[in-house]
Amino acid sequence: MLFADWLRLQLRVIESALDAFVAPGAPAELAAAMRYAVLGGGKRLRGMLVLAAQQAVAWGEASPAAAWRAAAIRGACAVELIHAYSLVHDDMPCMDNDVLRRGKPTVHVQFGEATALLAGDAMQALAFELLVPAAGSDVTIVPEVQAALCGLLARASGPTGMAGGQAIDLAHVGRTMDRAALQRMHELKTGALLHASVLMGAHCVPAVAARTLDALSAYGRALGLAFQVVDDILDATTDSATLGKTAGKDEADNKPTYVSLVGVASARAYAEQLHAQAIAALQRSGLSHAACAPLRGLADMVVQRSH
Amino acid sequence: MLFADWLRLQLRVIESALDAFVAPGAPAELAAAMRYAVLGGGKRLRGMLVLAAQQAVAWGEASPAAAWRAAAIRGACAVELIHAYSLVHDDMPCMDNDVLRRGKPTVHVQFGEATALLAGDAMQALAFELLVPAAGSDVTIVPEVQAALCGLLARASGPTGMAGGQAIDLAHVGRTMDRAALQRMHELKTGALLHASVLMGAHCVPAVAARTLDALSAYGRALGLAFQVVDDILDATTDSATLGKTAGKDEADNKPTYVSLVGVASARAYAEQLHAQAIAALQRSGLSHAACAPLRGLADMVVQRSH
Repeated sequence: MLFADWLRLQLRVIESALDAFVAPGAPAELAAAMRYAVLGGGKRLRGMLVLAAQQAVAWGEASPAAAWRAAAIRGACAVELIHAYSLVHDDMPCMDNDVLRRGKPTVHVQFGEATALLAGDAMQALAFELLVPAAGSDVTIVPEVQAALCGLLARASGPTGMAGGQAIDLAHVGRTMDRAALQRMHELKTGALLHASVLMGAHCVPAVAARTLDALSAYGRALGLAFQVVDDILDATTDSATLGKTAGKDEADNKPTYVSLVGVASARAYAEQLHAQAIAALQRSGLSHAACAPLRGLADMVVQRSH
Repeated sequence: MLFADWLRLQLRVIESALDAFVAPGAPAELAAAMRYAVLGGGKRLRGMLVLAAQQAVAWGEASPAAAWRAAAIRGACAVELIHAYSLVHDDMPCMDNDVLRRGKPTVHVQFGEATALLAGDAMQALAFELLVPAAGSDVTIVPEVQAALCGLLARASGPTGMAGGQAIDLAHVGRTMDRAALQRMHELKTGALLHASVLMGAHCVPAVAARTLDALSAYGRALGLAFQVVDDILDATTDSATLGKTAGKDEADNKPTYVSLVGVASARAYAEQLHAQAIAALQRSGLSHAACAPLRGLADMVVQRSH
């Protein structure tokens, strides 16, 4: 299958699962804000990583369980919910005060600040709900997988993950930051969730070899960092219309970035180097070349994207 | 053991566990805000319910596993983190805009709005982290218990739980609400987490009888509603100094409450009735009178409290 076809297929799966999961039974205004925040936008990179990693480790299994795929779809929706909630809160006036996201008014502009705050909070909780199907659900994911996915997602989101990275970011606006500190911030702020997405996908299949997990972990780490380096390059070199959000904000806010630290050319070279590391990790995973095709395609996409 | 002694003992356990869990490895300012928000204050009712329910179902077991208690302590810290994060976000200017909480400046007053927002987000994630001990932790909680606790906590916190209740509250400020709608709001806003606390405690012990779970669920539901009815009474009849937060806010904000709907006397009678329902539920739980002593004590405390 061509990578573009694979992407289109998975995108349909993720969008339709999110459409079903967000958020039946919730009060109308809250549900509307949550759906506005999470549906119909974005490349779903994090969700794709979950699905691609699960597919890679299940590849060639004589009898892959339907539950593995069901867990991966729930995991994909969970990481997308966490990512989307972080954008809702990030955009609020007390944080980045951004009014435009993916070409649309941000959630607090559309629904008010209080609803935006609550919608973000509810989306984080819903992410964990999805990983533990309700009693009576027709999905049977073994408790080991449910617990592993919850643990990975929580650690990637919390004080030593994404929220921690945002706190470092906040503490350094207008202050200098050396390359090691910048890298630490990005590893937490964006890297932790991308890394966890890969591991969550792998953990949907019980009893994956340690060697495979180690290699996928290295892949996820390199890809997560490459993503941020490319983000910095795009912010410095692309216009708002292409980006779908306000460009040049990093420089305007005097935020440290790879570009401000080493320049565009060196940042590009570093992104290429991280891409090579990610591909090399797949080669020592013990998984076949065919099994890893979507993971390779996603690594290419991260480095080659224009927005 | 006297109930007061039991309370003192459990309080020490919860405080010292929270002190250890919040939040090593997090950026300094974020950790400080999280600790400020969750340590050294509050009656820990939710955490107490987890510990009391676990103790009730483990009572009389020939060989209670240390892991049951370890799970309950983590569960207790998790529900307290969720409760504390909800207060941090609730107090923010875009929500209740409160500057005083437990007699201290609220988190956004002390640390700024951006850090308060992030600290709340990080506390929610940390709650789930605690329920799934990291690989290499010396605690071994079976995956079934980890997953059950995550599912209960997520559902109680999310769009059809606490966050949903807050959204209903938000949508009705200054508008009329009938008794059924008010009850629904409270069942979600405060009841869901209190109810889940009881069930999380019970689920720390694998294979609890369905009859026991049903009875504890009824106990938790009645207690949760009683708590809110008493909260409304106290808000209408107690001064800010005793309450440790701004009193009379409900009326000032024109929020519907049990008191505004049925008056103080009827609200008191309803709280007594719910208390009786909670006690009756314990009697049909199949658990011994001695096993249920802390749960009875907590029900008394909820209805008799003065702040």
